[in-house]
Amino acid sequence: MRAPDELRALLDSYLRELALTPELGGLEEAMRYTIESGGKRIRPVLCLATAEAAGGEPERALPAAAAVELVHTFSLVHDDLPAMDDDDERRGRPSAHIAFGEGVALLAGDALLAEAFRLALSYGTTAVARELAEATLGMIGGQYRDITSDESDLAELHRLKTGRLLAAAVGCGLWVAEVPEAAQGPWRAFGDELGLLFQVVDDVLDGDGYALRLGEEGARALAAEAADRSAERLAAIPADTSVLGEIVGGLAVRTS
Amino acid sequence: MRAPDELRALLDSYLRELALTPELGGLEEAMRYTIESGGKRIRPVLCLATAEAAGGEPERALPAAAAVELVHTFSLVHDDLPAMDDDDERRGRPSAHIAFGEGVALLAGDALLAEAFRLALSYGTTAVARELAEATLGMIGGQYRDITSDESDLAELHRLKTGRLLAAAVGCGLWVAEVPEAAQGPWRAFGDELGLLFQVVDDVLDGDGYALRLGEEGARALAAEAADRSAERLAAIPADTSVLGEIVGGLAVRTS
Repeated sequence: MRAPDELRALLDSYLRELALTPELGGLEEAMRYTIESGGKRIRPVLCLATAEAAGGEPERALPAAAAVELVHTFSLVHDDLPAMDDDDERRGRPSAHIAFGEGVALLAGDALLAEAFRLALSYGTTAVARELAEATLGMIGGQYRDITSDESDLAELHRLKTGRLLAAAVGCGLWVAEVPEAAQGPWRAFGDELGLLFQVVDDVLDGDGYALRLGEEGARALAAEAADRSAERLAAIPADTSVLGEIVGGLAVRTS
Repeated sequence: MRAPDELRALLDSYLRELALTPELGGLEEAMRYTIESGGKRIRPVLCLATAEAAGGEPERALPAAAAVELVHTFSLVHDDLPAMDDDDERRGRPSAHIAFGEGVALLAGDALLAEAFRLALSYGTTAVARELAEATLGMIGGQYRDITSDESDLAELHRLKTGRLLAAAVGCGLWVAEVPEAAQGPWRAFGDELGLLFQVVDDVLDGDGYALRLGEEGARALAAEAADRSAERLAAIPADTSVLGEIVGGLAVRTS
């Protein structure tokens, strides 16, 4: 079993060497800028760790893991645009539309999404790409609720906007490891817990969302509950899930 | 063999009844507005006619044809945005960002692309979705050349921006009809001719592009050549391609 850091190094090197579609021409520069902006790679590492825990080879899961990360990157690039959150910075660097202009950032986001599907379609089955398409649609539904301020149900908004892609990272790992659908239940129950855990910790770090609603102490308690529930779900999976446990532990105590 | 108008009616009714992903919530309204804006449906009709000419059932090709149309619609919605062509009207109605705001239009475009992949993935094979992903990436490469004014090679720009998706409409029809890859050559040679024909006629109607470069007469002569070449390619296909011939004829003499 490889540690999260080893899986992340594997993924980073795969992304660095990934050949994008040549016809994209100069757009590749903007895409690489956003891909290589040093994110935490939580989703792809989760995908690789799930595949390995389920008996698959992490190497074989690399295209799927990269596809999940490209969908995440696409969503950040479009979220940062002036018509959405209008963020000039992303991870301490100018966001894509500041660095390359709005039109190029828009197209770079579109191309990241299409490249994600190209990667997910490199398997013999449609299952990986279907998992990704459904999660992407759910995520976009969450972004729509976010910008139209339909926050009547904050938990549902976050389940869609953050939770769907985290759950799909687990799901894609299962398909690559060829876990039959009938045996995926306990794994998916684990994947479905991660969105809340991730989001509450995010809000504590940013001082908004759940931290505003529940106070910092209340939000930290909610995060601890979510982490406990994720650990319980992991314990119900008949496999060595120690690396996934480490990832959950890291999510709960992260400071950035 | 069904006539182009019958195929179009089939497609329109399929699109009207198409269930979008429920989690998209209120975004569906903006998506339906753009899908049902009364385009000519050239690409999906081409897909259905190819499937039928190649021995398949047009009905079975409906999800693939609709997927091609959704990719086309996605590209129009994003092209119309202020950061791109900044067009306030599309087919005589307010464009999506005028009707729903820029953020919603951006997300509607994203969701149209993801729904296109969901539809293309409803087949047992990855081939339809792969055809679509590669064409979409080529098309985005063409849009990039367009907005960065890299018009050094106008033919290549149009081959990508217009030609790739028209060729993929033919390609998707072939996959649905289960034409083996080794037998697809003559069909694909036909599909590859359509981009130029479509674009030159477009430019004559709009009085730009080729019409500016070659004069209206020169552009009309180029369109006639392209139509002749498409007809020659059709004649080389060992099947009844009469309906495809009608579609090509319609493309050459269209007035809108």
